[in-house]
Amino acid sequence: MHTIELRSDNCAGVAPEILAAVAAANTGSALAYGGDEWSARLQRRVAEVFECEHVAVFPVTTGTAANALSLSALCPPWGEVLCHETAHILRNECGATSMLGGGAVMRGLAGPDYRVSVEALQQAFDSTRWGDNHASQPSVLSLTSPTDFGTVYSVAEVTELAALAMSRGLRVHLDGARLANAIAALGCSPADLTWRAGVDVISLGATKNGALSTDAIVSFDPAVSAQLFYRVKRAGHVASKLRFQSAQLDAYLTDDLWLRLGARANEAMTRLAAGLTALQIELLAAPGANMVFARVEPALIQRLLDAAVLFYPMGPDTIRFVTSFQTTADDVDDVLARVQAAL
Amino acid sequence: MHTIELRSDNCAGVAPEILAAVAAANTGSALAYGGDEWSARLQRRVAEVFECEHVAVFPVTTGTAANALSLSALCPPWGEVLCHETAHILRNECGATSMLGGGAVMRGLAGPDYRVSVEALQQAFDSTRWGDNHASQPSVLSLTSPTDFGTVYSVAEVTELAALAMSRGLRVHLDGARLANAIAALGCSPADLTWRAGVDVISLGATKNGALSTDAIVSFDPAVSAQLFYRVKRAGHVASKLRFQSAQLDAYLTDDLWLRLGARANEAMTRLAAGLTALQIELLAAPGANMVFARVEPALIQRLLDAAVLFYPMGPDTIRFVTSFQTTADDVDDVLARVQAAL
Amino acid sequence: MHTIELRSDNCAGVAPEILAAVAAANTGSALAYGGDEWSARLQRRVAEVFECEHVAVFPVTTGTAANALSLSALCPPWGEVLCHETAHILRNECGATSMLGGGAVMRGLAGPDYRVSVEALQQAFDSTRWGDNHASQPSVLSLTSPTDFGTVYSVAEVTELAALAMSRGLRVHLDGARLANAIAALGCSPADLTWRAGVDVISLGATKNGALSTDAIVSFDPAVSAQLFYRVKRAGHVASKLRFQSAQLDAYLTDDLWLRLGARANEAMTRLAAGLTALQIELLAAPGANMVFARVEPALIQRLLDAAVLFYPMGPDTIRFVTSFQTTADDVDDVLARVQAAL
Amino acid sequence: MHTIELRSDNCAGVAPEILAAVAAANTGSALAYGGDEWSARLQRRVAEVFECEHVAVFPVTTGTAANALSLSALCPPWGEVLCHETAHILRNECGATSMLGGGAVMRGLAGPDYRVSVEALQQAFDSTRWGDNHASQPSVLSLTSPTDFGTVYSVAEVTELAALAMSRGLRVHLDGARLANAIAALGCSPADLTWRAGVDVISLGATKNGALSTDAIVSFDPAVSAQLFYRVKRAGHVASKLRFQSAQLDAYLTDDLWLRLGARANEAMTRLAAGLTALQIELLAAPGANMVFARVEPALIQRLLDAAVLFYPMGPDTIRFVTSFQTTADDVDDVLARVQAAL
Repeated sequence: MHTIELRSDNCAGVAPEILAAVAAANTGSALAYGGDEWSARLQRRVAEVFECEHVAVFPVTTGTAANALSLSALCPPWGEVLCHETAHILRNECGATSMLGGGAVMRGLAGPDYRVSVEALQQAFDSTRWGDNHASQPSVLSLTSPTDFGTVYSVAEVTELAALAMSRGLRVHLDGARLANAIAALGCSPADLTWRAGVDVISLGATKNGALSTDAIVSFDPAVSAQLFYRVKRAGHVASKLRFQSAQLDAYLTDDLWLRLGARANEAMTRLAAGLTALQIELLAAPGANMVFARVEPALIQRLLDAAVLFYPMGPDTIRFVTSFQTTADDVDDVLARVQAAL
Repeated sequence: MHTIELRSDNCAGVAPEILAAVAAANTGSALAYGGDEWSARLQRRVAEVFECEHVAVFPVTTGTAANALSLSALCPPWGEVLCHETAHILRNECGATSMLGGGAVMRGLAGPDYRVSVEALQQAFDSTRWGDNHASQPSVLSLTSPTDFGTVYSVAEVTELAALAMSRGLRVHLDGARLANAIAALGCSPADLTWRAGVDVISLGATKNGALSTDAIVSFDPAVSAQLFYRVKRAGHVASKLRFQSAQLDAYLTDDLWLRLGARANEAMTRLAAGLTALQIELLAAPGANMVFARVEPALIQRLLDAAVLFYPMGPDTIRFVTSFQTTADDVDDVLARVQAAL
Repeated sequence: MHTIELRSDNCAGVAPEILAAVAAANTGSALAYGGDEWSARLQRRVAEVFECEHVAVFPVTTGTAANALSLSALCPPWGEVLCHETAHILRNECGATSMLGGGAVMRGLAGPDYRVSVEALQQAFDSTRWGDNHASQPSVLSLTSPTDFGTVYSVAEVTELAALAMSRGLRVHLDGARLANAIAALGCSPADLTWRAGVDVISLGATKNGALSTDAIVSFDPAVSAQLFYRVKRAGHVASKLRFQSAQLDAYLTDDLWLRLGARANEAMTRLAAGLTALQIELLAAPGANMVFARVEPALIQRLLDAAVLFYPMGPDTIRFVTSFQTTADDVDDVLARVQAAL
Repeated sequence: MHTIELRSDNCAGVAPEILAAVAAANTGSALAYGGDEWSARLQRRVAEVFECEHVAVFPVTTGTAANALSLSALCPPWGEVLCHETAHILRNECGATSMLGGGAVMRGLAGPDYRVSVEALQQAFDSTRWGDNHASQPSVLSLTSPTDFGTVYSVAEVTELAALAMSRGLRVHLDGARLANAIAALGCSPADLTWRAGVDVISLGATKNGALSTDAIVSFDPAVSAQLFYRVKRAGHVASKLRFQSAQLDAYLTDDLWLRLGARANEAMTRLAAGLTALQIELLAAPGANMVFARVEPALIQRLLDAAVLFYPMGPDTIRFVTSFQTTADDVDDVLARVQAAL
């Protein structure tokens, strides 16, 4: 029985279009550290895709770097980053934001479906001792979409939360490690979900969705971009042969490749979730993109693992399935058959 | 007239063996963050190449990351890193070591040929107020070889400097952004130039010498490695699809590819330096590897640039030439002809 | 009607014995930065009072400095400090621990009566992904006693929590901003509540309990003390005329002055709490030392403030009373009379 | 033979006016953390003394704290602080500026008489790779006056250096650990030497010149002050019983006490230097305030120490004498007699 990969989209390989772009960039010599034509082209591509002339893009290697560096430029070192209590920056980055942020702290907020709710944000504001230097001052709202549990904020929700944040002087960051999946699912424009909604800086994921070794920071605020120029360097995140990261990102954003790859992963998840529901399996939240958590009998977990389905148990009775751009409809049907057999 | 690239080895492309290794690793799915077979193989490869069972390797994206993270694990935050006054960590990394090192400081030492001398190190020790908490305490000696000016420390020199450093309780770091060039030039074993000489941790460059997007930290001290495991992550330097960096490094270290690539660059430089000398051009230091600085008539600089030779002026009468694994004997002969014409 | 101060023990003045010690130290010249006889005497005094030969004491100006510097020496920068969710370090120090700790993070735990419970600590351990570098690693348990809500850990409780913490490799810190009040209330020896119970480092408060301008770090671990020697300096916390801080602390710890002052504040609180209870006022927790929180009718708050009782409302129906070594029985009786009148 | 103290002004005691102010402030209760009347009065006093309405004053415990916190608010974490190569911040503060500055670095400049020269500053600017993110960007000029070697910048010199610094966008900091001595020596107004000369923030020393335990940051830039409000707190430098520091500083600045104390120390030094010169002893620089370095026969050093003169040898043939507000003319004459005897 062949194995089927549902552990993480991080386990997937590289999209052929991306690998081809890397190979194509391996021609002649080029200035290092971004002084090359691929990096210039990427800058123009991002401006076009996000419909924003003054945008700046900084390729970095990891989503953790994108998040922590973005936040370090948005949050003063005595400030507080507000995020959902399940946010990746809070739970899965070993304190990178506090380190690169010079001691900035994070506060987790509640909210159903793993999303910050307007009520939770308002309550955080109400309980803050504003202007009291004994208390960390809320300075940035960081949203993750899709969340680490596969749910997605609508454009209206981002807009409302950002407006509330801005009303108290906060900046807004979007952790878009899987941004393509969110945009593909929402069918909105990249601009609508980001700067038009009030977002200042995004972490733009690419690695989980077909790139080889690059994510990026996309900043819509020139003053923040001016800081990032130095912050990215002194954290060791400016690759010398940057053309090979820029070429990946340029290919990724060209002709909607990123959205097509993201849509593939989403479609696989939609098919999977429908099948699981048909099998009476309880989902913790309706999947908005390419990830789902399900509650199952503990015994089922081992049977599924034995059936060559690769996934992560997230507790005694909880499992997580993640699809990627490489997950096919056949893969999904195979998984569903194995689940049915295991039930 | 075709351009010839002598600005930096960073301007070179990717070695075909490395690109092939990346393509070959793009097969099936694999665990993220180093839980893959390529990363395991790399770990064994490094142990074999460096003849050291307890070594640990951490692929990172840049030399700056490798340096600053290595030093952050070797130096207490109140400590002082001693290095040559021309060292890359001091002059070209935007303070990364102080930032990732939690406020650690650097002190530049003198020494001929851009190398720390035993005398300068001894003098630094003599002028230190040891045990006085008003004074930053020397805690790490960081050597760069080849230096940023193309000179190389011999095995005996590294050994003597490291012994002196250790006699005062310092740890020893080697910035090996071009380590393959140094080892190829010296004809020594990797172990002899590193841990057998007293070096605790090295920054192992690969990008300048044919890799696509990876350098590495190689730690010979398990206690330091245990720290790096967390330090690398929280600085955002653990790539999710690490297999593609590990595959590059594994190919790089296999069958002496790194040394063959380094030797090619060195040979081109040897040829170039001999030709320049024959043309009566003064070299600031005899090139030990693949870089040389030369003193020329100011007018010559523009004439050479006009002749499609790509290089960096480093002052009104100083120029730098860097060869790479892609520089051919024909390239060198062409350059020499253009220099002669420009004289 | 004269005002009665119950806002904070920080609002009290200086004990006459302490002021006399400062004046007495103002004689002749003395070496700066701790090379004076008062500092040497303090070191011996602390060893005697805590029955520990290898103890080290570092006078600092604030409790925030004592806490954050202690934790910076106990916690690696990628580590996590566990504390109660109401702890001062988490809620009232503007992220000092994350800043001086180089990016270390804090996690708030639950527990009744504002104290970390064994169950909450065990649950934190159970939910930790130990050895996973994506997750901040619990490294220090920081207890506050008395808590910021006036409750106190018994010696047995500290011992049990410290043992559990040590079983997972954590170090133990005690925020003793009001340690004298706790020891006076428990009637235990300073050693029993600290190092004999498994505590590695304490923040020893003095300012709230009669000192002029000094608190201290007391470290029972020589390796940590060796770090603190440098950490305290580079955070700007080594006063040049240290003799005047040492003289305060020496007087404070001599002839049980600290415990007598603490007992006075405690006795005033005991009298106050008894009186409030007699008036049917609900206390949020039985006061273990010199602080109490009470639930009252919202309207009562303004009436009490109008009656020249100085205190802090902590919410629409919650008030806090803090007694100090300067609070007399007459003060308490006056307050109770005014409360009764306001009811 | 009685000892005479010339090691440091840090060895002196407290001026009686200051001690009296502390005792006078020990009356009744007062709000903590600066919400008291003494702190409000200090704020007005500083505005009056410095002739600047929008000034803000932050009492801190040490000069190191004043310097490093000031610089952390003036310098971005990727920036570089320029100072003289003998500056206290560079040589004597254990890297506090890099730590509290989030990784900011320092660069030492040359200049005769231990003062930054216009030429050295211009040369630093000329050699800077402005706007290159591999290079730390000069962001603050920090001057020390009097220097650690007893020389003083004139108002014109500060003005010229500040203007040059501002022309390249740098901010200007003045380390005034002994500012009263400088102002007393120059006979200028506090405003002329500081904000009117282009200085943004000063470290205002008081401890060396008669205070008990306080120095201060004085900020002339409201945007910087707004940062310092939080930065001072999270570094643990906001004393709870701040009234006792504010009362010291208020007394210090009242009726020119600071200048009178400084003038006393200066006069003692003038008398001492004249006497040493008469004895043919070579001074390294003419003393501008209350400190002098002299070159002497090595044998003389021990003879002087044996003669109960307390001072610091600064090398085999160099000694340092520092006078304080407590040094009398008789003390000076005694020292000179002992020097003559030892010659």
